[in-house]
Amino acid sequence: MNLLNGKLFTEAEAAVLRDIIANRRDVRGNRFLDKPVEEAILQQLLDAALFAPSVGFSQPWEFVLIRDKDIKQQVKESFTTENEKATPVFKTEKQSVYALLKLEGIMEAPLNIAVFYRPSGKPVLGQTSMEEVGLYSVVCAIQNMWLMGRALNIGIGWVSILDPEKVKRIVNAPVENKLVAYLCVGYTDGFYTQPELEVLQWEKRKPEQTTVFYETY
Amino acid sequence: MNLLNGKLFTEAEAAVLRDIIANRRDVRGNRFLDKPVEEAILQQLLDAALFAPSVGFSQPWEFVLIRDKDIKQQVKESFTTENEKATPVFKTEKQSVYALLKLEGIMEAPLNIAVFYRPSGKPVLGQTSMEEVGLYSVVCAIQNMWLMGRALNIGIGWVSILDPEKVKRIVNAPVENKLVAYLCVGYTDGFYTQPELEVLQWEKRKPEQTTVFYETY
Repeated sequence: MNLLNGKLFTEAEAAVLRDIIANRRDVRGNRFLDKPVEEAILQQLLDAALFAPSVGFSQPWEFVLIRDKDIKQQVKESFTTENEKATPVFKTEKQSVYALLKLEGIMEAPLNIAVFYRPSGKPVLGQTSMEEVGLYSVVCAIQNMWLMGRALNIGIGWVSILDPEKVKRIVNAPVENKLVAYLCVGYTDGFYTQPELEVLQWEKRKPEQTTVFYETY
Repeated sequence: MNLLNGKLFTEAEAAVLRDIIANRRDVRGNRFLDKPVEEAILQQLLDAALFAPSVGFSQPWEFVLIRDKDIKQQVKESFTTENEKATPVFKTEKQSVYALLKLEGIMEAPLNIAVFYRPSGKPVLGQTSMEEVGLYSVVCAIQNMWLMGRALNIGIGWVSILDPEKVKRIVNAPVENKLVAYLCVGYTDGFYTQPELEVLQWEKRKPEQTTVFYETY
């Protein structure tokens, strides 16, 4: 068996990936449809996550699939509390824009996924100098899922305006676990052609030359 | 202009993404070819990174492209130091396997990329309750780049056995920046059909049911 026999991709296949990456969006509650996500679709999202890279092949991810309205409502309450704290943080002229933004889709999305990092409890190859790479493996799984969602025309939104300890308690997560992301998942009435925050000029897209350096800073 | 007019993907396009995700590998120095990565290819990798999601559209990533042998050599020295510390951490029976593993490709890969998180310095939408999501945005950019690399048949390896503070000093990174990843990038003599650590039975693939929970733990 030639283990080095991994498939070579064509330029047309690379172009498909480029297109999926460029069209991926963060989807919020004003776009989700009240239509369940089929098991076969969910399975494809999970498969994409489970094939993510992980430090030392540790696969330190756990996914809590939430459809229960009472559980979602409790998470939504944490969002509301945290979002009220967030508004005054922004400059006065931005606060009115901030207040108009829909920043989550917890109740509207038929499926929520709480994504956790579970520490291995034993030494992990590659994690001995930079402990945080375990968390980063979980983020790679989320990004795989997000891209696969877009390819399947399923919207995903990442809600980060939450108290992670409250969410842990709501889903009875083990104390050693860490909440990495809370995702809202579902069909949508369409996908934006550009990021919403770019359209609204909340932030500008950075020119590439400001983020790329050669040899050293 | 209908902003909600984002492209819908076909099942065949989703299958291409599934295939790229399943075939992505962590590539080490025993596989890299001594062949430069063309500018047009590098540009596609950077474009993939720059279209990643980021909290509040903050785009908090910076990329240092390293081809200089002296700089690479200094990073390699940090790897060697950290790797010597790592070996005794593992159980005696695993140490001989560990010692045989090629865990980086710093000198062999024609291109190295040090990827940093640069804090915005002002409040970021979505980052007010979970500060760490800024780092996670950078990881999403890395995963986009990794998948695009695989689609272009370019190998990428993530080296995490490094002292991040030493790497910062080597590339003169601003003190407020945080090293997220150090990547080795280049053409390869092939791609493994399975993760190397799975083939070597360093770790087993986890069954899906152990990582997926319903409603709560």
